[in-house]
Amino acid sequence: MRLVALPALRARLLDALDRHLPTHAHAEPSLRAALRQLASHPGKLVRAQLVLIGAEQHGWSAAAAEQLACAIEFFHVASLVLDDLPCMDNAETRRGQPCVHRRHGDATAILAALALINRAYALAGEAFLRAPRTVRRAAVTCLHRALGHAGLVGGQAWDLAFARTDRSSRTVAKIAAAKTGALFELTVLLPALAAPASGVERRWLRALCVYWGLQFQAADDLRDVLLTSVAAGKTTQRDQLMARPNLALALGVPAARHRLARLDTQIRRTLHQLNACSSRWDYLRQFHDTASALLARPVEAETVAA
Amino acid sequence: MRLVALPALRARLLDALDRHLPTHAHAEPSLRAALRQLASHPGKLVRAQLVLIGAEQHGWSAAAAEQLACAIEFFHVASLVLDDLPCMDNAETRRGQPCVHRRHGDATAILAALALINRAYALAGEAFLRAPRTVRRAAVTCLHRALGHAGLVGGQAWDLAFARTDRSSRTVAKIAAAKTGALFELTVLLPALAAPASGVERRWLRALCVYWGLQFQAADDLRDVLLTSVAAGKTTQRDQLMARPNLALALGVPAARHRLARLDTQIRRTLHQLNACSSRWDYLRQFHDTASALLARPVEAETVAA
Repeated sequence: MRLVALPALRARLLDALDRHLPTHAHAEPSLRAALRQLASHPGKLVRAQLVLIGAEQHGWSAAAAEQLACAIEFFHVASLVLDDLPCMDNAETRRGQPCVHRRHGDATAILAALALINRAYALAGEAFLRAPRTVRRAAVTCLHRALGHAGLVGGQAWDLAFARTDRSSRTVAKIAAAKTGALFELTVLLPALAAPASGVERRWLRALCVYWGLQFQAADDLRDVLLTSVAAGKTTQRDQLMARPNLALALGVPAARHRLARLDTQIRRTLHQLNACSSRWDYLRQFHDTASALLARPVEAETVAA
Repeated sequence: MRLVALPALRARLLDALDRHLPTHAHAEPSLRAALRQLASHPGKLVRAQLVLIGAEQHGWSAAAAEQLACAIEFFHVASLVLDDLPCMDNAETRRGQPCVHRRHGDATAILAALALINRAYALAGEAFLRAPRTVRRAAVTCLHRALGHAGLVGGQAWDLAFARTDRSSRTVAKIAAAKTGALFELTVLLPALAAPASGVERRWLRALCVYWGLQFQAADDLRDVLLTSVAAGKTTQRDQLMARPNLALALGVPAARHRLARLDTQIRRTLHQLNACSSRWDYLRQFHDTASALLARPVEAETVAA
């Protein structure tokens, strides 16, 4: 229970996130308030914790590990703020709070997301300053691939256009891999770039990111269908209404649960293969055993929405 | 007449922008169409031309010069797309076309801007891959400062909140420096990072960026007040309606014209000081003599809107 049982790690992350938050005393008050709201409701910090542990495993300095963890958290938070906008998912609540755009307006929400994105690129740039050129090149490629038109942005475009696709579970999975999988690519691969991994290891790592992305998204899809907004801490029951990709809607709840279990098997098999290559990947298995399994576990039948 | 009389430079830029556009055949059709629309109406490419010339002056490879020019153009275009959104300036036309959000929806416009921003960071990262660490560190700082909460994003937040400020011409100038000046900082300083400039030179370069930003913004403010949307190729007559910072509204048209003339004097003095340091800055004077002076010239009295 290394990851979630370590309050010190979370405290360290909260301190780093606060220090790196892109705001200052003379910033425009709404923008500052929006960023403060985001910082005050930090979520579970699953990705940031994994980055921190991975970066230390692979020999990063403590400062660079924190920069990398904050960068990925800021990219993640910015994507949530933008996804929640009225023109996207039109969500009302997030992390048990009114969404940033509900409290501060759409324009301020967009600007807060952009400030986070800009700071995140700066943090990633600083973290990789001392790395050799081949590693820096790989980092630029990784950020570009995961966040851009072939990753997060492209996935969100397909998410919004889902009603105009075949609506199959295959398309649902493709979108989840592009959106949720992309952020796991950053989370897992960026810290690992410091460790010269073999081609085989890189393939297993990529597969792991896709599976984790699918697993997290499938669990989120089940929560959207089965939970109330209060229980989930964010707006639910939205995917059917908005014609968004949702595995539980595409397959039905029992089949979605079954898929989730199968993904867990695939993840464990992948982690086993990675450990067979080198014990330095064991932190990924520890992560899966604790935080990931906890977060992505199928929601219980008794929590069905009223 | 080096800059605007060089159709070859423009053709080279258009080719590079097309090659670096963040889209592909399997991208979601609306996102692809939005990016294609932006690429098909490229504007005057003033900044990108200046980057290209500056990068070659300072010894960048042709490929890196193009990467840098495209990066800054993509940041610029993304900022226009976002500024035009209904929640920001609610513009209707841009570059003689319906705005991207009017044709493809707000969500797609936001995603297109994000795809451009992500590609721009990747291009800048690639352009600086071979640079020494101190130069790369300066590039990260420059991008962060110009684009983030202390630059473009922060300036846009104050722009939207202008009605809640003192509405003075000083506040108008502060916002113009943060928004328009910031993009000139990228345009001028990023290519110049390859040339070890003295502290004095760096101060003059920074001053030049602020003056150019103020000049471009003041000319834009006059166009907003004096031109029809058809004549300007974009929505005008908006600043008063939306309570946006506008020098011609804060000072009156004659005083704004006078300020524009004074800025020109300040710019020429700064360029003279830079040339006194080294002739390698002469391309900046050439730029001002042609493209910049042409674009920022005070709009004529006879073009007053109907």
